[in-house]
Amino acid sequence: MAKAKKYVYFFGGGVAEGRTQMRQLLGGKGANLAEMTNLNIPVPPGFTITTEVCDLYYKRGGTYPPGLDKQIDAGIRKLEKLTGKTFGHGENPLLVSVRSGAAVSMPGMMDTVLNLGLNDETLPALIQLTGNERFAWDAYRRFLQMFGDVVLGMEHEHFEAALQKVKDRRGAKLDTDLDADGMKQVVAEFKKVYRRDRKSFPQDARKQLEASIDAVFGSWNNPRAVTYRRINDIRGLLGTAINVQIMVFGNMGETSGTGVAFTRDPATGANVFYGEYLMNAQGEDVVAGTRTPLPIKTLKAVNPKVYKQLVGIRSVLERHYRDMQDVEFTIERGTLYMLQTRTGKRTVFAAVKMAVDMVRQKWITPEQALMRLDAGQLEQLFAPIFDAKEIAKVAPLTSGLNASPGAASGQVVFGADDAERWAVKGHEVILVRIETSPEDIGGMNVAKGILTSRGGMTSHAAVVARGMGTPCVAGAGDLRINYKKKTLTVKGRAFRQGDWISIDGFTGRVYGQRIATHPSEILQVLDGKLKPTQSQIYRNYRAVMKWADEHRHLAVRTNADTPADTARAVRFGAEGIGLTRTEHMFFEGKRIVAMREMILADDEAGRKKALKKLLPLQRKDFIGIFKALKGRPATIRLLDPPLHEFVPHDAKGQKEMARAMGVSARKIREKVESLHETNPMLGHRGCRLGIVYPEITAMQARAIFEAAWAVRGARPEIMVPLVGHVKELTHQKHIILKALEAVKKARKAKRVPFEFKIGTMIEVPRGALTADEVAAEAEFFSFGTNDLTQMGCGFSRDDAGTFLRHYVEELGIYEYDPFQTLDRTGVGELVRIAVEKGRSVRKELKIGICGEHGGDPSSIEFCHLAGLDYVSCSPYRVPVARLAAAQAAITHGKPKKGK
Amino acid sequence: MAKAKKYVYFFGGGVAEGRTQMRQLLGGKGANLAEMTNLNIPVPPGFTITTEVCDLYYKRGGTYPPGLDKQIDAGIRKLEKLTGKTFGHGENPLLVSVRSGAAVSMPGMMDTVLNLGLNDETLPALIQLTGNERFAWDAYRRFLQMFGDVVLGMEHEHFEAALQKVKDRRGAKLDTDLDADGMKQVVAEFKKVYRRDRKSFPQDARKQLEASIDAVFGSWNNPRAVTYRRINDIRGLLGTAINVQIMVFGNMGETSGTGVAFTRDPATGANVFYGEYLMNAQGEDVVAGTRTPLPIKTLKAVNPKVYKQLVGIRSVLERHYRDMQDVEFTIERGTLYMLQTRTGKRTVFAAVKMAVDMVRQKWITPEQALMRLDAGQLEQLFAPIFDAKEIAKVAPLTSGLNASPGAASGQVVFGADDAERWAVKGHEVILVRIETSPEDIGGMNVAKGILTSRGGMTSHAAVVARGMGTPCVAGAGDLRINYKKKTLTVKGRAFRQGDWISIDGFTGRVYGQRIATHPSEILQVLDGKLKPTQSQIYRNYRAVMKWADEHRHLAVRTNADTPADTARAVRFGAEGIGLTRTEHMFFEGKRIVAMREMILADDEAGRKKALKKLLPLQRKDFIGIFKALKGRPATIRLLDPPLHEFVPHDAKGQKEMARAMGVSARKIREKVESLHETNPMLGHRGCRLGIVYPEITAMQARAIFEAAWAVRGARPEIMVPLVGHVKELTHQKHIILKALEAVKKARKAKRVPFEFKIGTMIEVPRGALTADEVAAEAEFFSFGTNDLTQMGCGFSRDDAGTFLRHYVEELGIYEYDPFQTLDRTGVGELVRIAVEKGRSVRKELKIGICGEHGGDPSSIEFCHLAGLDYVSCSPYRVPVARLAAAQAAITHGKPKKGK
Repeated sequence: MAKAKKYVYFFGGGVAEGRTQMRQLLGGKGANLAEMTNLNIPVPPGFTITTEVCDLYYKRGGTYPPGLDKQIDAGIRKLEKLTGKTFGHGENPLLVSVRSGAAVSMPGMMDTVLNLGLNDETLPALIQLTGNERFAWDAYRRFLQMFGDVVLGMEHEHFEAALQKVKDRRGAKLDTDLDADGMKQVVAEFKKVYRRDRKSFPQDARKQLEASIDAVFGSWNNPRAVTYRRINDIRGLLGTAINVQIMVFGNMGETSGTGVAFTRDPATGANVFYGEYLMNAQGEDVVAGTRTPLPIKTLKAVNPKVYKQLVGIRSVLERHYRDMQDVEFTIERGTLYMLQTRTGKRTVFAAVKMAVDMVRQKWITPEQALMRLDAGQLEQLFAPIFDAKEIAKVAPLTSGLNASPGAASGQVVFGADDAERWAVKGHEVILVRIETSPEDIGGMNVAKGILTSRGGMTSHAAVVARGMGTPCVAGAGDLRINYKKKTLTVKGRAFRQGDWISIDGFTGRVYGQRIATHPSEILQVLDGKLKPTQSQIYRNYRAVMKWADEHRHLAVRTNADTPADTARAVRFGAEGIGLTRTEHMFFEGKRIVAMREMILADDEAGRKKALKKLLPLQRKDFIGIFKALKGRPATIRLLDPPLHEFVPHDAKGQKEMARAMGVSARKIREKVESLHETNPMLGHRGCRLGIVYPEITAMQARAIFEAAWAVRGARPEIMVPLVGHVKELTHQKHIILKALEAVKKARKAKRVPFEFKIGTMIEVPRGALTADEVAAEAEFFSFGTNDLTQMGCGFSRDDAGTFLRHYVEELGIYEYDPFQTLDRTGVGELVRIAVEKGRSVRKELKIGICGEHGGDPSSIEFCHLAGLDYVSCSPYRVPVARLAAAQAAITHGKPKKGK
Repeated sequence: MAKAKKYVYFFGGGVAEGRTQMRQLLGGKGANLAEMTNLNIPVPPGFTITTEVCDLYYKRGGTYPPGLDKQIDAGIRKLEKLTGKTFGHGENPLLVSVRSGAAVSMPGMMDTVLNLGLNDETLPALIQLTGNERFAWDAYRRFLQMFGDVVLGMEHEHFEAALQKVKDRRGAKLDTDLDADGMKQVVAEFKKVYRRDRKSFPQDARKQLEASIDAVFGSWNNPRAVTYRRINDIRGLLGTAINVQIMVFGNMGETSGTGVAFTRDPATGANVFYGEYLMNAQGEDVVAGTRTPLPIKTLKAVNPKVYKQLVGIRSVLERHYRDMQDVEFTIERGTLYMLQTRTGKRTVFAAVKMAVDMVRQKWITPEQALMRLDAGQLEQLFAPIFDAKEIAKVAPLTSGLNASPGAASGQVVFGADDAERWAVKGHEVILVRIETSPEDIGGMNVAKGILTSRGGMTSHAAVVARGMGTPCVAGAGDLRINYKKKTLTVKGRAFRQGDWISIDGFTGRVYGQRIATHPSEILQVLDGKLKPTQSQIYRNYRAVMKWADEHRHLAVRTNADTPADTARAVRFGAEGIGLTRTEHMFFEGKRIVAMREMILADDEAGRKKALKKLLPLQRKDFIGIFKALKGRPATIRLLDPPLHEFVPHDAKGQKEMARAMGVSARKIREKVESLHETNPMLGHRGCRLGIVYPEITAMQARAIFEAAWAVRGARPEIMVPLVGHVKELTHQKHIILKALEAVKKARKAKRVPFEFKIGTMIEVPRGALTADEVAAEAEFFSFGTNDLTQMGCGFSRDDAGTFLRHYVEELGIYEYDPFQTLDRTGVGELVRIAVEKGRSVRKELKIGICGEHGGDPSSIEFCHLAGLDYVSCSPYRVPVARLAAAQAAITHGKPKKGK
């Protein structure tokens, strides 16, 4: 018979069979216990049952592979030998803990059994050995309760009631008020609970262990754990490992204790030892909050030897792991034991600082530093934050989606107009809407924060807020908003216009009061309000970005519609504009009037007259943008949204428009109705506008060319949107080039003094599928992956909320929301087809992406793999994209391109 | 130097250089003149300048290839030699006609010049020769006018005015009132017109010819001709050829004449000589309608020799061409000349009859007969027609799209309810709506015809009407419909409910009065109201269908939702159902009540309760359908449309619903609002319903399985709609199979006594792109090319009207409306990808199409090429599909399949 596979890895006595690199097999906890053992750090000995066993346990329908039992027995014997203790009997009984530990930390999600090995025989021995009767009875009653609860699935409340009974009987308020005799009575009551529940407590320690191992493996797939893995996007694990380890006790009296520590400050990244502890306590007491733990530095006074040892271990672990560690320790009668070490969670501020510091310390390379950062989090560096003291004191009112990061506090207003009026008067406002629309831009622009009751992560409010860097909580379903009465009701609490609320775009929380906020330091530096020397955070950010730029292959551009946004994005490192939405220029002030005149016009002449008014305004916009870009290229998209977005849909707005235009309200209403579409997403928009009304394209092209003539170094790239058929592009290109000829002629110019390109957005599946035909006319492609996702998957972004969350969160039909993270299999296939077909006819075709995905790290990785030239995203995501692009390059190397 | 290419082809003297197969090069007219010459049929000699020259003329910017001139000169010399006449001078002058003639007939679209060669020198010779001074001067003035108009672009009116002046001066009413002297004066006046217009008339015949050739080639691209080619879908031609031919005159006196004839009756196909003629007339006189032509048989009395000769030629031509010919002839002084022969246009009735007759005569093979029919027209065989006499007397009021063929006359009603009420009382009604919706099904069902003011060829009204075989005119933009007042206004004329109108679904015309109609004979036979022996039309149809079935590889199924539709489709030859839309069963009577209860339900329990009421109804539907199919398979699509389609959107309807449901109108309103979607096409529909509400799928699956159990030979194929991700299918399949287990269990059955399949509709681009994943779960694919087109091209079918007509008709961006004819390049690519990927993982995957395209001949050809197994279409299109599938098989042979 072949020798059974190795399922059990021993650690103890300064030697371990595992090591930290084996975390997939041993779990994070097990691998690191082994590693610490090998580093001669004091670790209670034990053994790890591998994750493979967990996998086999499920595959074999709840049974174990042959040979496992023997390996466990051998582990126990080794522990007995090493410690001189005996398992389940004898004078020096061996007590063990049984803990889960997967390759990725899932704190508190799976089960644990402590004090295993206690029974009616070993209890007296423990009393004898420790001379601490109360401790021993307490340990036994804890074990009885935990075993009953975790292993046998007994009701938690039955034990609580029995404990309460004894406490009542003895007039004890707290558990700690019970003495040894009291604890003894609790044990007796707990045994009665077992009998009442018809459960038997195994006196045989080996049976206790077997049952506990079953329970812990079983807890891998409890609903809580499954949900946790889904929410935290933990995939591809075999299962959990199990660590069976000698018990050490922090509650053996005043020379015992327990604590947790970080090798650096996890909030700021400062290189200080950071942690807390409690004497005469067990680990759960530190967490439970019944006693207040003490700062780690005070341990120096309590036990200088142990403190010094701890500081030494901190140093060994950091040097060894070259990353900040999160450790747990126990002091048993003056002896220090390390129970766990793992890479510590940290804020983005700490992450950046530690990465930079450790590169400076030459502990890690810049590549490692870059890979260690969470690109998606980086944006949080620029968001305002709540005052730590104030936020600690308040409870949230409700919550929604954390749609755009940052803390904001302000007075409630319900309309964009109100927001602008109040802002002008110096108020700080939070714009509260059921949902927002392009007409609200003005109000959104002045608001400190945006709160909506409807819409998802890619709703209008969310997208625009992220673009503006304004904190936003979207889709807070508990809000009841009444526009007419201007009231907001949340769980019975009413707010009126002007009342203060606060929102936390990091977490999605909503607060019913004013809370102080502080602005981002980096932003202050970038905006010139703070000097670089005044902000360490900024300097660390700058270092990380420099490394990122040195590694990435993808260029990073920005989506920006105004000179101010453009300038900010350039400060964030944007190498050009990937998307200027020209229609965003049509909503402000008198522009909307001219736009509406154009829409109302009955014929081409009327439209041309209105467009003439828009021309100088557009030209001015482009001049501002070209100037802000200082020679960088700008992809400018021609008019895209359906015309009905420019007209008011309510009777009041229509009346106002009628007055302003000098026509009847009825005419306005009829026009608005005639513009109505059943599916506007698939309607008369994009280049279809410029094709039916070529004069619009002509005006926009003229404005672009005239502006480019006016700014030295302007590099316009004119983008025709929504092309599904090459002939659409041909048609528009012809009009654009005719406009150029006219501008040239007016200037009596022989040549055009600037570079320009004409290309298209690939956002209709047909455009991608026929990219070879399209590329014959296009000098560049820019993937509009929002629309490509809408049409490719058949999801309306505005409506998908009704089922998409269900799809992603409950059923896992899509692994991610395809509007947040590009669907590589389906939409990605369209991208791959288009890149391949496009480059097959035009090798030098420039290809980018300008949808929301351009700022999503996983999607950026895809873009790198697909061989794109650049990604474009909102200004605040530019640093995110720079980092994500570098990470993709480090992970995958140089992409293959069709060159 | 290489010898110049042959550009000129001579015919005359019983020998021609061309033949009928050279029509691409010589044009239809030229090729057939050559062919007739070779058949020894009397044709005035001449020569043809090839279409290649036309092509080169445009490619060379209006100049001719070297060598052409010489070849033309040679042609003229040959004509001179053959006839003994001289061109442009001499006593026996050679006069020629210069006519266009492309490979495809474009009647009247291009220019013609007659009597060329007349000048001041040849005119006296012509007088001398003919002894007919008036004739000669008339010929000269005609030539002057035609040359000025056609070649020199002079104003037609100037000539008309000059002619009128002479007539006035001489007191003549008609042109024929002018004698020789009058005509001479006209010539003089015409010459003055030339001088006034500063144009010179070339006396040199060779120059006349040159300029005329220029003009005719130029007319190939005049706007009229371009439009004609676009409308008639004429593509791929090089250009027009030009025929220069000796003039013969039908107006040389009472022994001369001219006529047109068909070798069979083009309306009925009867094997009789059919035509008309005029003595002492030119061709244009027959067409102009100033004189009434005589039936051809009367020519026997006028000139028995010529008549006999004509009858002989009819016989020679028919035997030779083996098809019905449309001929033109002229009799010059008792001598017969044939001026043209071509395949004659015919009605679908005539086409079928002649095809069958000629196969019986063994003139053509069944394959040739099939290829000769226009599959798209076939449907017209089943439509009612207007009484020929009545329709001849009335003028149309307006027109719209010919959305569903057939003639209908009835009283105007504006609502589906009214339609049903009126129909019950025995009225024949035309349902007039702005547009229709699924709620109108009942009314549409009873209406004789449907007329809408909005919507295209694939609007709801059009699709449903074609499905029902009900005549429909859609998108008649001139209609002003007021539902409230129940009035229809068309160009100022008002109609009220109950007024009579008529619509012609063949042509799109709308008439403002009652017109008698006759039902289709074939339908009467199929419906058992007429015996096959009583209808020759039916027997011919049956023969054609038999041949089609023998040749085609594609199976043909039908889209049918009721037992009655199914039975009719089976009579039309459907081999099964390709699409049953189960939701169509939810609108009638109390079903809609239960459906609405389900929609209103707050939880699963409530939905299940309502679904329980629907279960027996659905089961009954399926039993009826399975019975009607008699062992043929039925693809049944699970619930597809968004729920909001089942609830009323107007206040009145909501109030009624509230009353019926016993809840507040507010609750209904809120529910309806909550169901509102911005883009319902991309919203919560298809399998997304069955995934969020699995109980719906469970009920439908149960109904299907229970019905299948009840009908021997039932073969259900359950189709999950709108699958974009394989996991959607997996999810639904699980529920379907669970329902099957339950049904099995309830029957204590060990096995399932019928065949069934579970598959999916491929209608989301992502579904096509990931077809390999999907096919792992699907036993069949059915392409929903309507939605695939909507999403693939990004066109909302409901909204595309605003730009799509512009795209197709004005700009030619798409060659065809992609909703009518499958877009092979784009949407077709998705089909090809899906077929290839699908069969790569499941060789025996059954693949069909069930969109509107399944009944379109060009799309059916594509399906054949793409290797599909079947097409499915509305019952009335089944014969169309059978024929089109046979044509595709004959043209392309057996398709390649991934087997």
